[in-house]
Amino acid sequence: MKHDSWLPGIATSLYSPNFSDNLGCHGRLAGNNPQDDKSVGLNDAIQSLVSYFETNDIRECILIGHSYGGMVITGAFDKLGAERIKRLVYWNAFVPNPGECLNDMVPPNYVGLFDAIAQDDGSVLLPYPIWREAFINDADEDLAKASYERLNPHPYKTFTDTIELSKAPAEMEVGKSYLNCQEDVALPASLPWHPRLSEKLGLYRLVSMPGSHESCFTNPTLLGKKMIEAGRD
Amino acid sequence: MKHDSWLPGIATSLYSPNFSDNLGCHGRLAGNNPQDDKSVGLNDAIQSLVSYFETNDIRECILIGHSYGGMVITGAFDKLGAERIKRLVYWNAFVPNPGECLNDMVPPNYVGLFDAIAQDDGSVLLPYPIWREAFINDADEDLAKASYERLNPHPYKTFTDTIELSKAPAEMEVGKSYLNCQEDVALPASLPWHPRLSEKLGLYRLVSMPGSHESCFTNPTLLGKKMIEAGRD
Amino acid sequence: MKHDSWLPGIATSLYSPNFSDNLGCHGRLAGNNPQDDKSVGLNDAIQSLVSYFETNDIRECILIGHSYGGMVITGAFDKLGAERIKRLVYWNAFVPNPGECLNDMVPPNYVGLFDAIAQDDGSVLLPYPIWREAFINDADEDLAKASYERLNPHPYKTFTDTIELSKAPAEMEVGKSYLNCQEDVALPASLPWHPRLSEKLGLYRLVSMPGSHESCFTNPTLLGKKMIEAGRD
Repeated sequence: MKHDSWLPGIATSLYSPNFSDNLGCHGRLAGNNPQDDKSVGLNDAIQSLVSYFETNDIRECILIGHSYGGMVITGAFDKLGAERIKRLVYWNAFVPNPGECLNDMVPPNYVGLFDAIAQDDGSVLLPYPIWREAFINDADEDLAKASYERLNPHPYKTFTDTIELSKAPAEMEVGKSYLNCQEDVALPASLPWHPRLSEKLGLYRLVSMPGSHESCFTNPTLLGKKMIEAGRD
Repeated sequence: MKHDSWLPGIATSLYSPNFSDNLGCHGRLAGNNPQDDKSVGLNDAIQSLVSYFETNDIRECILIGHSYGGMVITGAFDKLGAERIKRLVYWNAFVPNPGECLNDMVPPNYVGLFDAIAQDDGSVLLPYPIWREAFINDADEDLAKASYERLNPHPYKTFTDTIELSKAPAEMEVGKSYLNCQEDVALPASLPWHPRLSEKLGLYRLVSMPGSHESCFTNPTLLGKKMIEAGRD
Repeated sequence: MKHDSWLPGIATSLYSPNFSDNLGCHGRLAGNNPQDDKSVGLNDAIQSLVSYFETNDIRECILIGHSYGGMVITGAFDKLGAERIKRLVYWNAFVPNPGECLNDMVPPNYVGLFDAIAQDDGSVLLPYPIWREAFINDADEDLAKASYERLNPHPYKTFTDTIELSKAPAEMEVGKSYLNCQEDVALPASLPWHPRLSEKLGLYRLVSMPGSHESCFTNPTLLGKKMIEAGRD
């Protein structure tokens, strides 16, 4: 591994088994079901969430997105509006402006790594050493390995597709929170989640806690408590 | 609210009911008593604290300033000296160099917001949504509302008056501490209290804790403990 | 003390009574034994650690370096290799690239302070006010004084000698962790240990905790727990 290619800087997108659970959905985002075609793109993922809201007539929802999930909840709010979604919670998540893709928010060497590890079916999966050191740094080895086994290859196209938005997140009239796990170095600490991405929200509520990018595995109790603090009125 | 005007970046100055209590005073700084004329300036506020020390012949005091209060304690020490004040504790507070005003230390868009919300009587009061999301982000809604009801409009002139000092804080021969609440985004995290303002103190003691700008409301017990750690010899 | 010379930015090197204890050694690094000649240089210190490994045929060791100790463990790994050392743990420690000296990683005003306080025998010892405010800021006064009494003057040549390394730390094939005490302002918070120095490691595991540069004195229990988290597979 080269000096300048040491971290991938993604997140739930690379596995996201629990992302849809966080939403309280019974299905998963398009592209994240194990059997999904790995060529699906960002708009497919957003649309699958939009359809879920509409099919189930969900209203006044607090929507949490983790990592890549920040792309999806931003896009979904833009289509669904404040009647259906009352607050967006970004948990160490990407915050896109109109026309940005996820890869625009990671260092160039990450893009190089993604390109290098992309499979023929269009999916990417994080190498274990990166997972262990930079994503789940606060786990013991058993948990690091067990959680890695649960990862689900992710459709890379969702990182390279640019997002269509009618306005920037800072202009969106909705409650906005950023939940920051303070030992999350899945993005380099010199190019961090917070405040680099959080401040793209305009007025937002900051909630933070100790923990890695994978606090859903390493400290779910505290994470749940902080999600409530981030999501309440 | 525009993208670039999302945070005001002030503080106790906008309410400061407890500031004088922190000092152990029975009165309040000029400008912060509910009945005070809202045209009072920074020097009036400083002089009211200086007079309190002299009238009561206070010596070897540990003086804590919060937010705007950092302006006042810096000015008071410059007039009173080390015999009366043994240590200055800046709790998420402004640290002015000679000739600076508070507005010099906040982003230009904050100044624009202040100008826009200033009342005819010369006072400013924070809009509730900013209070709730950026100042008391760690409170539940009931506490956010109850504390907002206690706020006292603040004389804006104290933010635009430049301070007269015989020397920079870094040169002042007095104990200096900075108490930093780590989720305080009353100033943007990209233009933060610490280390941007703390390092203007020269040699100082850092004490930190989790919490928002309004930890006096949300976690007074821990705040008190940290004030003691910041203030001790 | 001038505004721009307020912090020295060193560390264990200035006392290091416990550094060798952390290694599980019964001796100390050359230069840090009380009776040592204070003219010893960086290579002497590194070689004393290398010899200890070889004499005792130590293998699969997890090696922790604090502050200046980061120079020594980096140099020792370069000579000893991954068979003897399985992981390097940098606890608020310097991370040198080939040809750098410790003084290259501190602000110019620190170098000025070191030069000014260096004794005729080649040693440096931190003035108490700097120790108390910037190194052991989380201690009470009794502990600050008692720990200061234990300090051992440090050979300054080890800060000015450049290190010889066959490769940069980012290229070293060994486990790497950075343990960051979050109130450590022994280096200025604007020119911090983490991520400025930690990211020189390439892929590394971040572990953090509240505490000053001297958490070995102020919170040894938590520090020990975090050392285990940093050192495990």
